[in-house]
Amino acid sequence: MLNNTNFIGDVFEFVASPSNPIGDLVSPVLVGPNVKIISDRVYYWPQYTAIPVPANDDLMIFSFSKLTGHAGSRLGWAIVKDINVYNRMVQYINRADVEMSKDTLLRALTILKVVEEGDGKKFFNFARKVLRYRWEKLSHIFSFSKRFSLQNLSTRYCSYLGGDREPSPVFAWVHCKREADKNCSEVFAEAKIISRPGSRFFAENDHVRLNLATRQDDFDMLVPRLKQLISQEV
Amino acid sequence: MLNNTNFIGDVFEFVASPSNPIGDLVSPVLVGPNVKIISDRVYYWPQYTAIPVPANDDLMIFSFSKLTGHAGSRLGWAIVKDINVYNRMVQYINRADVEMSKDTLLRALTILKVVEEGDGKKFFNFARKVLRYRWEKLSHIFSFSKRFSLQNLSTRYCSYLGGDREPSPVFAWVHCKREADKNCSEVFAEAKIISRPGSRFFAENDHVRLNLATRQDDFDMLVPRLKQLISQEV
Repeated sequence: MLNNTNFIGDVFEFVASPSNPIGDLVSPVLVGPNVKIISDRVYYWPQYTAIPVPANDDLMIFSFSKLTGHAGSRLGWAIVKDINVYNRMVQYINRADVEMSKDTLLRALTILKVVEEGDGKKFFNFARKVLRYRWEKLSHIFSFSKRFSLQNLSTRYCSYLGGDREPSPVFAWVHCKREADKNCSEVFAEAKIISRPGSRFFAENDHVRLNLATRQDDFDMLVPRLKQLISQEV
Repeated sequence: MLNNTNFIGDVFEFVASPSNPIGDLVSPVLVGPNVKIISDRVYYWPQYTAIPVPANDDLMIFSFSKLTGHAGSRLGWAIVKDINVYNRMVQYINRADVEMSKDTLLRALTILKVVEEGDGKKFFNFARKVLRYRWEKLSHIFSFSKRFSLQNLSTRYCSYLGGDREPSPVFAWVHCKREADKNCSEVFAEAKIISRPGSRFFAENDHVRLNLATRQDDFDMLVPRLKQLISQEV
């Protein structure tokens, strides 16, 4: 664990909350006058997590990619409280890109109008329902396994949609528990399931990440392959 | 004038041809094994200049902004002969942007199909005709002036559209010849004409740049104001 009292000079900590790949809500590790926190809030939307309180960090980054799935648009935004930091970010954008593509902005505005339709909760309720269904399905399948386990996520109160909300994460973080399954990604590849090895997330390769925010067709192919893999356990 | 024999280490020269703001075709100043040329070819299109030969430099940059006027799309491209330079450019783009906005690419492809319509020359002939008309108009107006002069541009053979092509530059580079008009941009501002001062182009402020690639309405307002300004000469 890092100890901030040992640092000299400025330190930046990137805090992804919900975290990737686990999906839990986390706080900064470092504190102190020399610590600057950059809060990666790309997954802090009601379809992925309960929203206990509105996000209110000093520097929060968001992406269209994670809000609606339009990753190809390459549109992001930030909420920045420090005017000096804001000005330097604007200056960087101005040097690097002049400005954002108007075509992208126009499409994003059109899509955001759909997100806002009704009481502004229709889109989030829809996306949450899909992800919640998938997580329940996966939890059920993995409950029969002794070889693999999923991450634990808690039910939390959501101040945006209201009520207690059971987990609906975007990723499954699977642990291959057998000594022989140290290369967990290979185990899944043999079962014709694409996964990202744990080493891509500063973890051991006895873990893999499965994406649950895929197209319905892909999820529908994942389910029988997972069942098949787990039914083979001896 | 720079003398390349004095340099130690690598030197980069940006060569804009046609030049901005004058619009003439220029060659690199520097030569030698340590010199890398980046050729800014954004205006090397038949609407702006005769094309004596196809552009064939080692590293050429282009922009959608100047090809069709869609500056807001922020789309550019490069032709790069050195595979190592290419790979580093790809790596930079990957780090900075992951990739280009798909929305922008889709719109650009749609517009490029219009550019290609017919024999591929319809768009260029149209745009050239507009700019040629504007340059003739301006040349005629300024021919009555002793106070101001325009840059000289030559008729050249165009291998793309065929035949000798008289100038059709995107900018007028106006010289205020009177000692009292050292702040040339102010003179034009008083005549309600927006210009860019010469200092923006490493020149003296007795020069200004006028944009001729404006909307028709703007050009139609420019003409009487210029005539008025020049008719006031005493």
